[in-house]
Amino acid sequence: MSVEFRVDPARYRHWRVGFDGPVATVTMDTDEHGGLVPGYELKLNSYDLGVDIELYDITQRLRFEHPEVAAVVLTSGKDKIFCAGANIRMLAASPHHDKVNFCKFTNETRNGIEDATANSGQTWIAALNGTASGGGYELALACEHIMLVDDRSSAVSLPELPLLGVLPGTGGLTRVVDKRHVRRDLADYFSTRPEGVGGKKAAAWRLVDEVVPRTAWDQTVTARARERAAAEPRPAGARGIKLTPLAKDRSAGAIRYRYVSAKLDPARGVAEITIEGPLSDPPASTEGIHAQGDQFWTLAMTRELDDLILDLRTNEPELGTWVLRTKGDPGKVLAHDRLLRDSHRPDLGENPSENPNENPTANPTDWLAREITGYLKRTLKRLDVTSRSLIALIEPGSCFAGSLLELALAADRSFQLAGTREDDDPDTEPATVTIGTMNLGPLPMANGLTRLQTRFLGDDKALAEAEQHKEQNLEAEDAERLGLVTFAPDDIDWDDEVRIAVEERNSFSPDALSGLEANYRFAGPETLETKIFGRLSAWQNWIFTRPNASGPDGALRKFGTGQRADFDRKRV
Amino acid sequence: MSVEFRVDPARYRHWRVGFDGPVATVTMDTDEHGGLVPGYELKLNSYDLGVDIELYDITQRLRFEHPEVAAVVLTSGKDKIFCAGANIRMLAASPHHDKVNFCKFTNETRNGIEDATANSGQTWIAALNGTASGGGYELALACEHIMLVDDRSSAVSLPELPLLGVLPGTGGLTRVVDKRHVRRDLADYFSTRPEGVGGKKAAAWRLVDEVVPRTAWDQTVTARARERAAAEPRPAGARGIKLTPLAKDRSAGAIRYRYVSAKLDPARGVAEITIEGPLSDPPASTEGIHAQGDQFWTLAMTRELDDLILDLRTNEPELGTWVLRTKGDPGKVLAHDRLLRDSHRPDLGENPSENPNENPTANPTDWLAREITGYLKRTLKRLDVTSRSLIALIEPGSCFAGSLLELALAADRSFQLAGTREDDDPDTEPATVTIGTMNLGPLPMANGLTRLQTRFLGDDKALAEAEQHKEQNLEAEDAERLGLVTFAPDDIDWDDEVRIAVEERNSFSPDALSGLEANYRFAGPETLETKIFGRLSAWQNWIFTRPNASGPDGALRKFGTGQRADFDRKRV
Repeated sequence: MSVEFRVDPARYRHWRVGFDGPVATVTMDTDEHGGLVPGYELKLNSYDLGVDIELYDITQRLRFEHPEVAAVVLTSGKDKIFCAGANIRMLAASPHHDKVNFCKFTNETRNGIEDATANSGQTWIAALNGTASGGGYELALACEHIMLVDDRSSAVSLPELPLLGVLPGTGGLTRVVDKRHVRRDLADYFSTRPEGVGGKKAAAWRLVDEVVPRTAWDQTVTARARERAAAEPRPAGARGIKLTPLAKDRSAGAIRYRYVSAKLDPARGVAEITIEGPLSDPPASTEGIHAQGDQFWTLAMTRELDDLILDLRTNEPELGTWVLRTKGDPGKVLAHDRLLRDSHRPDLGENPSENPNENPTANPTDWLAREITGYLKRTLKRLDVTSRSLIALIEPGSCFAGSLLELALAADRSFQLAGTREDDDPDTEPATVTIGTMNLGPLPMANGLTRLQTRFLGDDKALAEAEQHKEQNLEAEDAERLGLVTFAPDDIDWDDEVRIAVEERNSFSPDALSGLEANYRFAGPETLETKIFGRLSAWQNWIFTRPNASGPDGALRKFGTGQRADFDRKRV
Repeated sequence: MSVEFRVDPARYRHWRVGFDGPVATVTMDTDEHGGLVPGYELKLNSYDLGVDIELYDITQRLRFEHPEVAAVVLTSGKDKIFCAGANIRMLAASPHHDKVNFCKFTNETRNGIEDATANSGQTWIAALNGTASGGGYELALACEHIMLVDDRSSAVSLPELPLLGVLPGTGGLTRVVDKRHVRRDLADYFSTRPEGVGGKKAAAWRLVDEVVPRTAWDQTVTARARERAAAEPRPAGARGIKLTPLAKDRSAGAIRYRYVSAKLDPARGVAEITIEGPLSDPPASTEGIHAQGDQFWTLAMTRELDDLILDLRTNEPELGTWVLRTKGDPGKVLAHDRLLRDSHRPDLGENPSENPNENPTANPTDWLAREITGYLKRTLKRLDVTSRSLIALIEPGSCFAGSLLELALAADRSFQLAGTREDDDPDTEPATVTIGTMNLGPLPMANGLTRLQTRFLGDDKALAEAEQHKEQNLEAEDAERLGLVTFAPDDIDWDDEVRIAVEERNSFSPDALSGLEANYRFAGPETLETKIFGRLSAWQNWIFTRPNASGPDGALRKFGTGQRADFDRKRV
């Protein structure tokens, strides 16, 4: 069965979304019988990948379709329970790669919620009208403000360790100490108590921001949402754009969208991904972006790429190498990039544009340009944490410029053809790469650096030299000399070099590749995000795969049977 | 068989150490038949835990016995090979916990080499007179300067991924990109080439600092060592102290040294560790530290604690909880701390002491005080990365003050008895904890923060308030209020609370506890060290435990058989 990430809001099974002026209320109310696969019931607002796919869709639509929303209240439609976390039977029955992939996606959605608060002016408030345990509490931890009803029974908890022999898999440990600054010994105690901590102690220990008696609950939640909304200026008179259904054609051997396509090659363990640049020039002004809506190239391409990444990660785990190509006119990519940048430059303050004569846009803080850029940023981050080897091939007719150059910079290796091919048209131009404004700030990685900064970590001279070549179409020799591509073979060597690189990758241990790439892709500073994807996820992967959790007598398998797990007591 | 970490330099089997004024030369020349356990030969300067135990001893003796040494040349006594890394047959035959424990210790020794360069004025130079592969190159990466002979065959390499299906286990990936700033795509390519990279390319890619023709090798190595030594001012006329054999009594149920002892309780899965404070006042001045040499309390206690940690980690993997107690006079601990601090305060510049009237030491940069403090710092760091639950019990008669308070701050939880016990002597004083000068800077954790700063991460007010109580003996109620201890039960509750905490710990999944503790202990900033112990080691643990590496058809087991590994190709 192939998991589908495209959802129609009219068919949500687990969530309700309501609007009241600048406040949206997102209510979790899982359909017990709505699990993605048979074998478990989604009781007590427990969730599986399907529930989270809908939540992800909600976060995206709130940004694009509801720019008027400034505060989002996340609450539960059930009595006494906010959310019981990931469904345990689902987890216990999942193969290892599905567990890890599920945790990665939920992590990304949680990070997206934090990103909405930080960058989209939509502050998420967790209104815990009942107990939030495990992944339920982790969902709350992603919100900016956590309110817990004070009724002598509702609590927050991370019972994974005592009950299941695993770690909270969605950033819980990191957020408890690094974001909320719960004291480490209290955090330790908290994480070993299956029943968790409620009431005033939960607030005193910083596990929640406030506890509210049930009698004052509704009015306090409303008040808090309004306060937060009032603190977030929204674009006056902004009207959202519609995210229309994404056209997609999926067959055994290929996945096709309008700009993005992938050829699946199981024999070689490869997905050959091609991203097409814009076919026409961008509209003349910011208003044109709004007029094009989700057909604006950058947004349309990003939606497709996002869906493709999720699809391949989930449904094609044996395609271990993704070969990335682009096709089109670099100039048109850069023109779209420039329009987005000129439409949203909060860093320029009151200056409407860096180059007002060239592109006299009037509004430097356009919300839609901001959202499109932010979505591209998150999608590229998704690529960074994808456990697939990424190889970029830069050939004549490609458009690795600006935002699309990020694909080559995200790759583990890149090859740029020097010159043209013998059998190319005589007027074929050699392949080029071009640094543009999008490479210099608006698309940071999870470590807070641009991909160029990460690439040249500790080598400021090389970074400065590369940046000096901004807006220049660099052929292979120059790009290689500047360190922008890994190798620059010519026509004679290209086929062999590329073939060997791809074949060789497929001969290595997939696990060792995941570890290698996870370490090399995130040099430099660490953030909450890199800690969650690097340190915490690696520990979780290890624990998931150990007999103490997932073996026949492991805690995850024994949960609910009334039997105790049988542990190998050796500490590792 | 019990592994012993105490070694006699006269009986080194794998290393030679030579001295030429300020330059020491450490030569690796493993005895093929000197493996720690039967079943493998240490060919090509490959190493096992026994080889690394000797290297650790060398690093310690260079610091304490040879303060005149300012540069250390690390080289090989074999032809054409510097070091082939960890012995593969040894690794393949080791159970998982031994693999992980071995990697942890080698990591600590490598970090200690970097610490010697940074903090002890002993700059390590890797003189690669032959190929350095895998752990051999990782050993070189820990050095400040890497020289490689340029002879068309010698290279540096990380062949673990292509040959063994695992990651370099000793910091290699992190140091390549984060320390040496090798570009990430070149690092990726390098780490998939079994034969590695040599010659000028190795230098151009920053994998080594210089390549030197064999004809100029000896003189260039000598010149480089002398330059580095000349750049490191050594204490004039300093005479080392002797690290005399450490007295230790080990029986099935207990390990005893002079100040440190442990009762082993396999039934409860507990080691009960007690550390005694100094029995007498410290000497009156810095000279007295030198006169006492390795009998000076802080040094003697630290050597014992270091050996105990290593012994328990390696030989008692099923003792998952370490209960930490102290015994003695807090005043005497603080007095020893003050003498060390007054003897070595480079941060005070030319000021001989913060309080010259009280403690008129003459030399604020005494090398021995620096080394003793540095050794205590490294030993406490060893505790931080130990995968055992740490519970500190603060009872009447204890001395959790200054340097020994760090034990309670390193613990996952601490309990301080409020008041005294009903059956105590009537003149028994309640237990106290005391913040001293040692808690405020000289003993940072791997994250670069003090344990107090980590404890109060993001809560500067609580940190400042705790620090204001410096030098005050704080009883349980005050210590709990200030956040210095986790719980403060009184006599009525003490036994039950402590018993439950310890028993409960022993009932949890040991793997999940390791993951929980590794995440909670290192909140805050990340460094090369925390990346190596957190991110990289967690990935390595995961990969080690996967069938693709360690299963019957895994790469680690197939190595040397001429057969290919059979991989599950799903990417996780």
